[in-house]
Amino acid sequence: MLLYDGFTALDAVGPYEALCRVPGVRVITVAKRAGLIRTDTGELGIAAAKSLRQVPRPDVLVVPGGGERGTTATMADTRILDWIRQADRHTAWTTSVCTGSLILGAAGLLHGLPATTYWASRPYLKEVGAVYTPGRFVESGKIITAAGVSAGIDMGLHLAARLSDEEVGRAMELAIEYAPEPPFGTGNADLADAETRTRALKLLADSSA
Amino acid sequence: MLLYDGFTALDAVGPYEALCRVPGVRVITVAKRAGLIRTDTGELGIAAAKSLRQVPRPDVLVVPGGGERGTTATMADTRILDWIRQADRHTAWTTSVCTGSLILGAAGLLHGLPATTYWASRPYLKEVGAVYTPGRFVESGKIITAAGVSAGIDMGLHLAARLSDEEVGRAMELAIEYAPEPPFGTGNADLADAETRTRALKLLADSSA
Repeated sequence: MLLYDGFTALDAVGPYEALCRVPGVRVITVAKRAGLIRTDTGELGIAAAKSLRQVPRPDVLVVPGGGERGTTATMADTRILDWIRQADRHTAWTTSVCTGSLILGAAGLLHGLPATTYWASRPYLKEVGAVYTPGRFVESGKIITAAGVSAGIDMGLHLAARLSDEEVGRAMELAIEYAPEPPFGTGNADLADAETRTRALKLLADSSA
Repeated sequence: MLLYDGFTALDAVGPYEALCRVPGVRVITVAKRAGLIRTDTGELGIAAAKSLRQVPRPDVLVVPGGGERGTTATMADTRILDWIRQADRHTAWTTSVCTGSLILGAAGLLHGLPATTYWASRPYLKEVGAVYTPGRFVESGKIITAAGVSAGIDMGLHLAARLSDEEVGRAMELAIEYAPEPPFGTGNADLADAETRTRALKLLADSSA
């Protein structure tokens, strides 16, 4: 699981929680340098256990999304992009959450492929050669891209089953008691009204580190 | 937000992600000592920004749940329980996720109150004097207890609206794109079959640090 300055905490921790108990799976957080990595608000720090160099061949790659600044900087970070490309040569699954798909795209991995991303970032998929496709997650060969933030949980549970079997996926969904009841019903951008969309983008902009 | 050895990552990061962009809210992670705190699998470390002593009067308290060992140890940790009781005297909201309600209960805060917890831990609510009540979260005066792990997201969004207004709650639900589609439909313990329940408990036991 790649961490970088300005990643979004739930983008990483959603799949982490779905995957960390799957038999045979060990989730390793990696970043350019091992140590504490700050999330997009600057408030929370999560540890990268290893440096990129220490984990050249992960079996599975998970790239979380981030705030605009963190995502954009990572999309231009040749050291991280080189690592992603090298890692992808050997992975069984290469995956992303939210704007993490734009990072995979910047590494050249999504060319011509159906993919998804954060709702507000859908137009940028075209710029990295991907074809926006609706869905909580989109599987295309060994690449799985999830929609925004909380969609990493759905993708993580799907991946848990792929890495093991459906019974493990079913059990992990219960283990994290994932029977959601969103209190407002506004989580789908295609159904949310314009005021809610505008307000959401403003809250995101105002909270960026 | 209280962290302690063996807490469950998503229990904390779910509410964090729902709350961290609410105007006027600053989420502060606290633990007995500031620094890296290990989650229940031992694999992931999240930083506590402050020590308990540095944050004696939070406006809102969020207590995540943890693995059996972490929860049980915290329920017997008089320094943490004293801090929770002191903090609760001044909070506008005192909340928990998953087995965090058992910790609130051990601090004596749930006596006679309706509350919820992790599905497998419901019988223990009685031992701390609480009355198990179904729901993704249960609000009782200023105390809100959420069900297991991912239910902290639902509770966090509700709390975001309580701390601000419903428009902010609606916008935050969109900001984290919380329109879940659980892939297996097994996240509700009352509907899951016995085999899935047994398997989930085994995965949890086998992954405990």
